[in-house]
Amino acid sequence: MVTVGIVGGTGYSGVELLRILARHPQVRLVAITSRTESGTPVAKMFPSLRGSIDLCFSDPAATDLGACDVVFFATPSGVAMEQTPGLLQRGARVIDLAADFRLKSATAWQKWYGMTHACPDLLEEAVYGLPELNRARIRRARVVGNPGCYATAVQLGFLPLIEAGVVDAAHLIADAKSGVSGAGRKAEVHILFSEAADNFKAYAVSGHRHSAEILEGLGQAGREKIGVTFVPHLTPMIRGIHATLYARLTRDVDVQQLYERRFRDEPFVDVMPPGNTPDTRSVRGANQCRIALHRPRDADTVVVLAVIDNLVKGAAGQAVQNMNIMFDLPETQGLEALALLP
Amino acid sequence: MVTVGIVGGTGYSGVELLRILARHPQVRLVAITSRTESGTPVAKMFPSLRGSIDLCFSDPAATDLGACDVVFFATPSGVAMEQTPGLLQRGARVIDLAADFRLKSATAWQKWYGMTHACPDLLEEAVYGLPELNRARIRRARVVGNPGCYATAVQLGFLPLIEAGVVDAAHLIADAKSGVSGAGRKAEVHILFSEAADNFKAYAVSGHRHSAEILEGLGQAGREKIGVTFVPHLTPMIRGIHATLYARLTRDVDVQQLYERRFRDEPFVDVMPPGNTPDTRSVRGANQCRIALHRPRDADTVVVLAVIDNLVKGAAGQAVQNMNIMFDLPETQGLEALALLP
Amino acid sequence: MVTVGIVGGTGYSGVELLRILARHPQVRLVAITSRTESGTPVAKMFPSLRGSIDLCFSDPAATDLGACDVVFFATPSGVAMEQTPGLLQRGARVIDLAADFRLKSATAWQKWYGMTHACPDLLEEAVYGLPELNRARIRRARVVGNPGCYATAVQLGFLPLIEAGVVDAAHLIADAKSGVSGAGRKAEVHILFSEAADNFKAYAVSGHRHSAEILEGLGQAGREKIGVTFVPHLTPMIRGIHATLYARLTRDVDVQQLYERRFRDEPFVDVMPPGNTPDTRSVRGANQCRIALHRPRDADTVVVLAVIDNLVKGAAGQAVQNMNIMFDLPETQGLEALALLP
Amino acid sequence: MVTVGIVGGTGYSGVELLRILARHPQVRLVAITSRTESGTPVAKMFPSLRGSIDLCFSDPAATDLGACDVVFFATPSGVAMEQTPGLLQRGARVIDLAADFRLKSATAWQKWYGMTHACPDLLEEAVYGLPELNRARIRRARVVGNPGCYATAVQLGFLPLIEAGVVDAAHLIADAKSGVSGAGRKAEVHILFSEAADNFKAYAVSGHRHSAEILEGLGQAGREKIGVTFVPHLTPMIRGIHATLYARLTRDVDVQQLYERRFRDEPFVDVMPPGNTPDTRSVRGANQCRIALHRPRDADTVVVLAVIDNLVKGAAGQAVQNMNIMFDLPETQGLEALALLP
Repeated sequence: MVTVGIVGGTGYSGVELLRILARHPQVRLVAITSRTESGTPVAKMFPSLRGSIDLCFSDPAATDLGACDVVFFATPSGVAMEQTPGLLQRGARVIDLAADFRLKSATAWQKWYGMTHACPDLLEEAVYGLPELNRARIRRARVVGNPGCYATAVQLGFLPLIEAGVVDAAHLIADAKSGVSGAGRKAEVHILFSEAADNFKAYAVSGHRHSAEILEGLGQAGREKIGVTFVPHLTPMIRGIHATLYARLTRDVDVQQLYERRFRDEPFVDVMPPGNTPDTRSVRGANQCRIALHRPRDADTVVVLAVIDNLVKGAAGQAVQNMNIMFDLPETQGLEALALLP
Repeated sequence: MVTVGIVGGTGYSGVELLRILARHPQVRLVAITSRTESGTPVAKMFPSLRGSIDLCFSDPAATDLGACDVVFFATPSGVAMEQTPGLLQRGARVIDLAADFRLKSATAWQKWYGMTHACPDLLEEAVYGLPELNRARIRRARVVGNPGCYATAVQLGFLPLIEAGVVDAAHLIADAKSGVSGAGRKAEVHILFSEAADNFKAYAVSGHRHSAEILEGLGQAGREKIGVTFVPHLTPMIRGIHATLYARLTRDVDVQQLYERRFRDEPFVDVMPPGNTPDTRSVRGANQCRIALHRPRDADTVVVLAVIDNLVKGAAGQAVQNMNIMFDLPETQGLEALALLP
Repeated sequence: MVTVGIVGGTGYSGVELLRILARHPQVRLVAITSRTESGTPVAKMFPSLRGSIDLCFSDPAATDLGACDVVFFATPSGVAMEQTPGLLQRGARVIDLAADFRLKSATAWQKWYGMTHACPDLLEEAVYGLPELNRARIRRARVVGNPGCYATAVQLGFLPLIEAGVVDAAHLIADAKSGVSGAGRKAEVHILFSEAADNFKAYAVSGHRHSAEILEGLGQAGREKIGVTFVPHLTPMIRGIHATLYARLTRDVDVQQLYERRFRDEPFVDVMPPGNTPDTRSVRGANQCRIALHRPRDADTVVVLAVIDNLVKGAAGQAVQNMNIMFDLPETQGLEALALLP
Repeated sequence: MVTVGIVGGTGYSGVELLRILARHPQVRLVAITSRTESGTPVAKMFPSLRGSIDLCFSDPAATDLGACDVVFFATPSGVAMEQTPGLLQRGARVIDLAADFRLKSATAWQKWYGMTHACPDLLEEAVYGLPELNRARIRRARVVGNPGCYATAVQLGFLPLIEAGVVDAAHLIADAKSGVSGAGRKAEVHILFSEAADNFKAYAVSGHRHSAEILEGLGQAGREKIGVTFVPHLTPMIRGIHATLYARLTRDVDVQQLYERRFRDEPFVDVMPPGNTPDTRSVRGANQCRIALHRPRDADTVVVLAVIDNLVKGAAGQAVQNMNIMFDLPETQGLEALALLP
């Protein structure tokens, strides 16, 4: 049994983590902390968990997370970096669902997140938790920076092309669409139902934080300098990311075969047969990335369609996948649930 | 292991049944028939099942379902009644998710469903599959008529009041709201996205088929003649039923306590503490009925709020619950998944 | 030309008022005040108004609204009552879209709104702005309390029955469903897209503020004491209210004819032919109440279905209708837009 | 007054045309034909039109449309080309909202629409009804081919760049997202609410019919050969198209200024100030194209965001705009309605 603690379980990544961990056969959940909700039963805030999780949110100051085997941070960026060094000292391992340990460069981190990093030395040690890229290093990691949702879909979608070195890596285009839960459970006007429903819009066109991870991850995967025009869009659905990726081939290649080979042994990446287009709902609630490849008019532009559930393969599910790897559990354990369709 | 066959797996109850059975540890799914989709891989029609279900839809004529332990019918009403006698003869048991075995009266059945019943003799033997009402009889049943979605929510919501005989049973009001999947996976204009989204409407106000089950079920539960004004509404959500039930108390009673006692041992009925109102999403994807009780201004009108997922506790989940009971499996087996929230 | 000022145009009632007034041929909009947005162009906050409204939000302290013919308050409750006496003195008339002038009783007001009323003397003079009930008095009113959205639908739906005295007025049931815009443009978690989409729930079952208006309005209309069990529900759509109303007939009556006669000359109430059920979208964006009557199984319970757009006939449209009446303009002027469907 | 006939008013373009024309001060609507609904009052099918349109659908065979000044075809492709020659002979002019007169090349038409064109000679005479491109020729046209919805957004978005010759026109990328009403009011499973809600997917990646119009239109506008990778996506909203357009600059240019100048005198194209991103809802129900320009990281890829309402500027509104031009009415007449927001 792995003993697990969670810091900050009141957001969407948090409640999704609870949904998954509550049914994980090798997990014992011992504490969930929340400054604002200390003392509140978890199931009072999330009635969907009534009867399954009896814990109350506990005061961070009064909770000994160091005794856990692993601590998940489902907090805003900037929290995990403060507490991680202490937890490591006490022997716990850390999986951060926020951005504190996603980048190698403290300078880049400061630029994108507007704070000085609290433990830049740990940035080097921390492992970027994309199993399809870093599985071996995740296994031994003390600190895992769980990838961003957009970054997961975009990297998985581009990886085989970049690794094979067959596209103009300096001019990638990533047109990404996210469900509204990607913006978090925050009281903000622009994500109100009456603002976001029956509406579609781009945002952060001049630069989105996930760009930094994408550049680092794809840069690690290939040999060329990466350039990505990344345009995220807010879509009127709760869950789901659809990345429509465009790259210019520099060499003729059987793209379908390239992807099938690359992901053949990956339990959570599904390459569809030619001619298909993946629905985001085909992965709703499931820890899955589903990909389809197209090359319209046999021209030199390849179109990759990649979908994930932003809260599962894009957050909590991938975090549990990382935990399974770190603790030598079957990688799919607790993650077998099928997508909810319709 | 229970060997299972499904007739007609191309609708929403069908795919939901597949989602649940694919992960049920005591089930071996051996055949899914479909006249129109014979030969098509199930996972081609429902990509969410890719990698989990390898079966193809098979031709009903060429498929020996009689060798199964149990056959689920996820077909339109009128199909199960034709095939059930033959299956029973060969030793299979039957759970019909349609309406063929829900009513005791062949006359009432003919009136509501516009067909002569093909095996009226089996109507008497068949058991109405609401476990909270008929658990003991379901255990021994050869044929179970799985309740309608509205009927499940309305009956569970009224049952304690009717059993206790504390309300004017002749003037019940059931104002029910359903997600659009309740109308099935049929190519009809009125359930198109552009018709049903951002819209709300009542329908079938003059009489809905589920009234008949409700009258029979509640009639069995209490001693008084039942009268229900039942108004269903189409709601712009995919899954979920919310029944808002009104009854006039004829006797002072602690309604909260009445319900808590009645459902104390029920694994799939959750009575919320006073002051709550259940969200349909708190049961989305889960085999659960969640109930809250209100008595505004302490007047004599009691308001019961009952929510279910129409495809789970209102269809496929309840069908699997019935199967578990029939085959002496733990009643919750395969049905432990938590609601998907958000 | 009527010169118009608006206090507080940053909410949904405010922007809807702007949409309607910008196209009203007899209106000159001279000022919109907002404490928080002073100096911001209206069209910057609401790009849908680009090119149509050139005003900036102005500082309330620096804006002379007393020179307007009429001032609309699209503010939270409690604001209009502070400023109205001063505006009346300067000769302006007032239409309050909030609740400050909806009730006659200062005691009831204080109970429901949790504040002492600032000008209880004006409560007697103010006219409840439901034209179908109070048209003649609205014409001469200096202060109009524009009805609440639920209250509009529920009162219009019950009025003919109450006026005719043919139902048990002490046991009315109003099961009402509202789109999320009814909750306003406020940064609150429970109305986030990810909370309110694909979900349905009741709220405020123990008592909703609009009950008070309904009791006063229906009380004025009939001779009997009114009792209403009023249960509002949050529905995953942007606009629209659907009131499903239940009453027990105490006398046999042709309900269809009763309604057709009562509303024959009303420009904004449409009684549908027998057998219909109104969609909320059939009034989306239109100043219209659409009603259908049902009497299931010819029993004694009559079911009234009444739909409005909560922001139009339930707020801004009705306010402009009141303005038209007050200034002897054609009652439908500026309100001819047809519903947006689909 | 312009006398107007409509062929086929039962789809979404048809009802939208009715909504607009019913309030157009210079239009007299004399006939709406429908083979399947002959005799049905229009307002029975679309209750939103109750009280505004008293016509019944009439039998095409029994209706003399030749006496109209103009006939709109809101039919599937292939209908207008059969009837147009006869109507022209009788002196009527024709605006086809389907695709029959959008292309110059009969060969291309046959390839994309799978039928032989019935009047290829008229293809040369017919004018492609994008006013921003062809205003002068529309004025004199007897036959106008009203552009497709995607084609309108994509062309308006690319026009200034192509006309100025400042981008690599052979490698344009158009990532377009459409609301579900774009697929029409047809009973098809894939656009059911339960299929399309809470879901996002690409389709027709290998080639969409609107590509042909885009190539012809942009080809006419510039001097270079056009190549477009066009990927449409189905978005869970009713109305709206969002085109995200990518082009590589071949010359340094002030893109913002280029667009502002190009569209300065266009009543229905709005170029937003720098830094903005347009919402589709900002044009919901309005005949408007709203555009914003971005150049992330000052690199050579320009990103154009263009939104329209697919049923208004993308169909019925643009058709009425064309009618206004053809009959020397003010171009904005009947099209002044502001977007419905929220």
